[in-house]
Amino acid sequence: MRAARVDQMGLENLALVELPDPAPGPGEVLVAMKAASLNYRDLLAVKGGYGSMQKQEKLIPLSDGAGEIVAVGEKVRGWKVGDRVISCFFPDWQAGPLRMECVGTDLGGRFDGVAAEKRVFRQDALVKLPDNLSYLEGASLPCAAATAWNAVIEKGGVGPGHRVLTQGTGGVSLFALQFAVMAGAEVYATSSSPEKLDLLKTLGARHVFNYKEDQAWGASVQKATRGLGIDVAVEIGGAETLKQTMRAMTLGGTIAMVGVVTGAKAELNVPIVAMQETRIEGVTAGSRASLQRLVDAISRSGVKPVIDQRVFTLETLREGLEYLASGKHVGKVCVEIG
Amino acid sequence: MRAARVDQMGLENLALVELPDPAPGPGEVLVAMKAASLNYRDLLAVKGGYGSMQKQEKLIPLSDGAGEIVAVGEKVRGWKVGDRVISCFFPDWQAGPLRMECVGTDLGGRFDGVAAEKRVFRQDALVKLPDNLSYLEGASLPCAAATAWNAVIEKGGVGPGHRVLTQGTGGVSLFALQFAVMAGAEVYATSSSPEKLDLLKTLGARHVFNYKEDQAWGASVQKATRGLGIDVAVEIGGAETLKQTMRAMTLGGTIAMVGVVTGAKAELNVPIVAMQETRIEGVTAGSRASLQRLVDAISRSGVKPVIDQRVFTLETLREGLEYLASGKHVGKVCVEIG
Amino acid sequence: MRAARVDQMGLENLALVELPDPAPGPGEVLVAMKAASLNYRDLLAVKGGYGSMQKQEKLIPLSDGAGEIVAVGEKVRGWKVGDRVISCFFPDWQAGPLRMECVGTDLGGRFDGVAAEKRVFRQDALVKLPDNLSYLEGASLPCAAATAWNAVIEKGGVGPGHRVLTQGTGGVSLFALQFAVMAGAEVYATSSSPEKLDLLKTLGARHVFNYKEDQAWGASVQKATRGLGIDVAVEIGGAETLKQTMRAMTLGGTIAMVGVVTGAKAELNVPIVAMQETRIEGVTAGSRASLQRLVDAISRSGVKPVIDQRVFTLETLREGLEYLASGKHVGKVCVEIG
Amino acid sequence: MRAARVDQMGLENLALVELPDPAPGPGEVLVAMKAASLNYRDLLAVKGGYGSMQKQEKLIPLSDGAGEIVAVGEKVRGWKVGDRVISCFFPDWQAGPLRMECVGTDLGGRFDGVAAEKRVFRQDALVKLPDNLSYLEGASLPCAAATAWNAVIEKGGVGPGHRVLTQGTGGVSLFALQFAVMAGAEVYATSSSPEKLDLLKTLGARHVFNYKEDQAWGASVQKATRGLGIDVAVEIGGAETLKQTMRAMTLGGTIAMVGVVTGAKAELNVPIVAMQETRIEGVTAGSRASLQRLVDAISRSGVKPVIDQRVFTLETLREGLEYLASGKHVGKVCVEIG
Repeated sequence: MRAARVDQMGLENLALVELPDPAPGPGEVLVAMKAASLNYRDLLAVKGGYGSMQKQEKLIPLSDGAGEIVAVGEKVRGWKVGDRVISCFFPDWQAGPLRMECVGTDLGGRFDGVAAEKRVFRQDALVKLPDNLSYLEGASLPCAAATAWNAVIEKGGVGPGHRVLTQGTGGVSLFALQFAVMAGAEVYATSSSPEKLDLLKTLGARHVFNYKEDQAWGASVQKATRGLGIDVAVEIGGAETLKQTMRAMTLGGTIAMVGVVTGAKAELNVPIVAMQETRIEGVTAGSRASLQRLVDAISRSGVKPVIDQRVFTLETLREGLEYLASGKHVGKVCVEIG
Repeated sequence: MRAARVDQMGLENLALVELPDPAPGPGEVLVAMKAASLNYRDLLAVKGGYGSMQKQEKLIPLSDGAGEIVAVGEKVRGWKVGDRVISCFFPDWQAGPLRMECVGTDLGGRFDGVAAEKRVFRQDALVKLPDNLSYLEGASLPCAAATAWNAVIEKGGVGPGHRVLTQGTGGVSLFALQFAVMAGAEVYATSSSPEKLDLLKTLGARHVFNYKEDQAWGASVQKATRGLGIDVAVEIGGAETLKQTMRAMTLGGTIAMVGVVTGAKAELNVPIVAMQETRIEGVTAGSRASLQRLVDAISRSGVKPVIDQRVFTLETLREGLEYLASGKHVGKVCVEIG
Repeated sequence: MRAARVDQMGLENLALVELPDPAPGPGEVLVAMKAASLNYRDLLAVKGGYGSMQKQEKLIPLSDGAGEIVAVGEKVRGWKVGDRVISCFFPDWQAGPLRMECVGTDLGGRFDGVAAEKRVFRQDALVKLPDNLSYLEGASLPCAAATAWNAVIEKGGVGPGHRVLTQGTGGVSLFALQFAVMAGAEVYATSSSPEKLDLLKTLGARHVFNYKEDQAWGASVQKATRGLGIDVAVEIGGAETLKQTMRAMTLGGTIAMVGVVTGAKAELNVPIVAMQETRIEGVTAGSRASLQRLVDAISRSGVKPVIDQRVFTLETLREGLEYLASGKHVGKVCVEIG
Repeated sequence: MRAARVDQMGLENLALVELPDPAPGPGEVLVAMKAASLNYRDLLAVKGGYGSMQKQEKLIPLSDGAGEIVAVGEKVRGWKVGDRVISCFFPDWQAGPLRMECVGTDLGGRFDGVAAEKRVFRQDALVKLPDNLSYLEGASLPCAAATAWNAVIEKGGVGPGHRVLTQGTGGVSLFALQFAVMAGAEVYATSSSPEKLDLLKTLGARHVFNYKEDQAWGASVQKATRGLGIDVAVEIGGAETLKQTMRAMTLGGTIAMVGVVTGAKAELNVPIVAMQETRIEGVTAGSRASLQRLVDAISRSGVKPVIDQRVFTLETLREGLEYLASGKHVGKVCVEIG
């Protein structure tokens, strides 16, 4: 089988390799990968900058994949050949809150990922792909959608009447918008161009803000809420945007911290955080149980993940990652396999 | 001004009386009532059977009303003549969990209610009626919608992907259905006739069950959920239905106990409750803050309360209560005033 | 090795058998059992009345055990020979809320239990026994203490200033008392004799009530709380006691439903549950993560499990179960092994 | 009556003035103040730097007081002459989450405070002082203890087995330590001198750290927890200490942000917050219902507030505030009145 692999860290070293077909052991299944999707952390991993625990040579990258089970090992319960499946971001995180044992088990970091024609998974490292989602759509979920789900639904507790703020048109932000609308909330969304703002409206945003034209957009959002403020903000921007986000919030509101697009450090105005009883929640991709809930919800709702119009292959994975780095994409950048 | 009053307890004694116009004191406002709605507890109160604390003579009944502010007392902040308002069910319950001081402060029980052309309210016993809701719609909210809101949203925590069970076509049940749909859940609803089941589908129920034809409907609901079970059930029936409801539930599901239509006592199968980790939540109409959140949500969502086609007046209030008692209504039975 | 086994269901058929020593496979460890403890469900299981899924022949009973690891299979991480361990009640319930896959995995029901000199465990079906707890004390925890922990701490959320009600001197009740005291709550406890009430006071109960002498003890508890009411009650009695418990509760209080000593059915007064916003929570023994938290807490606190003065052996296990059935015990009835 | 007043902002202008005795109106009571306590915000207020809404002339400062009711207005329920009472920090915040209407209602800011021999309070702006607390002890609670209670108990949810971090020996920190111990947690506490560390141990801290000698104390705390990490940290230091605190935390731990001793801005390492799923909670003094719960808890527990050995009077209030500013105090700096 073929896989994309980076033998020495660096995007320029990403190349196709021919490897022997793997075979599933007891409790494992073999999946023919059909699709994958790209996250910013994959770019870091390929360059060798995704944390101290990552593999520093011969890494098969990518955490998010979907495919079809083509072989089943001994002692496997609940799966059969032909089942359509999605990979879990942290295979060891089955349910409940994050535990130390789960950290670092994400695919495409310390362990090989899904950028391959075939991959063996532990039977509990997968969830079922519903019939009404394509492989590409399924592959878009494990990291970005799961992060947005945890931010908006599980930690944010968003429901009818809530006001939610999203930032930009990246994968996590668009999923956050879609989940907030699904939960009956009113979405306030920022972006940088009229075209993108139109897309946000199409997806259900009630109010949109061009952050390039309106640098004090935090106050504009606050005003648009009629002074009621934002209940849950999905903070994707990091340092530069946090100040504006703080101005948009209601008392006791929640800022879900998911990203680092504009910088790794953010300045917190401590007295304001205290007096407004703001809650800031660090959010990761979550457990398998959480992914299962989001897959159920998205499947029943009829909502479709937003896939960028450019779709790549294992052969063009490097261009895909470069495209992701360019920031020109909308929604998820995906890869078709096989 | 005129009011409907029951001087000696008994539905047959409900009659119109002429009373002097009241005047607002400090911190109070005078409201010209435009509409009211009926709840089962009003029937009990008029008969003198609504708890030991209720007024036993000269009771102006009804808890739920909407109207227009026509005079404002001293020290009133935030209200002006012309404001459209809704009454709160428990005026003393402003926010937070239920406290002893709030019990028994509901209108039309120990204190006179809203079945009058004018009524003085403490300034914090009202919430604003949004422009896109009529007086009749506003009057439908304080008890039934607030109870449904607390059951489904505040205590049930319903969100996308959840499965919710509602029972019948009474006020609380239809609001519960609407709030569950608003929150992205899938609704399973029971009723007794094809016409009512059609209405439930129109309001957004995904699966409907005729409990007269299918007495083991609990198992049918369980099956329709593909064995996943109901996350939140709004139990309106009491004793007779609880057993079926229990069969429909998922592990760790919540049964919100709001009603007593079929009887005041219900038998609990203790080992099943324990082993399935079922949560049973007693639910009342909730605080003013909770009413405010539901009014915001309903106003922003565009959802319309279901008002029965028969609308009564102060003159015909007695027939209205008899109509409610007959169980022939759908949604809220309302009264136009003035 | 020797094990206690019931080849045909019935307490009279419980007998010692000689079996070949088991060997651990990949991901498994072999434990030399040193102690076990008895729960009421073990009595049901030995008689064949513990649910439809239980083994109906050749059952090695008992869910709760402690011992020492004497062999370690391949692919085992984190355990070594000599480690002291406690068994988990539901080996498949690792963390998070109860899921269908975990039900029926409890030891000594559908699967053989710990009444044996040696037993193989999956590596994730154990938690470490802290140095300051004996094997007997460790063996007392997996079912009764875990149930009490979930009732009082995880679902009850008991903390400083809360008022907690416990019933009797069985294992779950005494652990509930101890955890409530540990969490800074004030405990109100019932029992049937002056000696037992003295023990409850020694363990930290502030107020005790003899339910044989004071059959309306619910009102007495309510009065002793100065009308503030009980925040969390651990309902162990079932049908007969629930009515008294309801009278002792505060508004919005929680009744944790753990037991069935006096009968499997309990009558619920629906209007009272609704108007008092009572929460009733079904509670089981919980997940491995939950057991880990309770073991940490009990170990750091210096609190000692209450072990009945009569300790049995594999040879006398039948007498032990009869003693448990007699209700004469205080705290946990335990078994020394090997 | 006499009061301490600052007619033009500045600590040097704080002086005693003679004012007419106030009289209670309807729904109000008159309290003869017996004690007050000082908070850092009082120092800011006297200097005119406590936010844009504060009174900028003729301010009677101080938010925290205790005294005896000496007169009762009309329509007052539940209070009588002779009742011992404590003031609420935010009189308009009765229960539930913080709302906009409550902000700025704290005493000694926009409204006159308690540094007077007599003061009129709305009947719902007080809670009862339990018999086993002195006036000085009661006066120590409304701001610092309430903040610590919200941080540790209401938002932190601290219970048995949790690990809690406190910083220094100021009022909030010592209360946080005491509440954490009361709730069954293990406390890790930092301070700057052997004497203070001894005090922390006396109050129940299990592990203490001298942050002057050990600047990388975050790693030392992490190590002392055996790698399990801190569940709830009460962050009082702000900018300088946050980095160390982050190193001490467990996955999913909560940092309660209460203070600004070392600076108003804190730098957040966004990827670490996200990957560790850290929760940061802004915390204020909380509602009247919350104060009532803490007063109940402290009264039943027998725990005594730590009062600094220097106690001031209205005449020496200025020295009291200077003493607070010096940082030499331990626990609460208090004032005796009358």
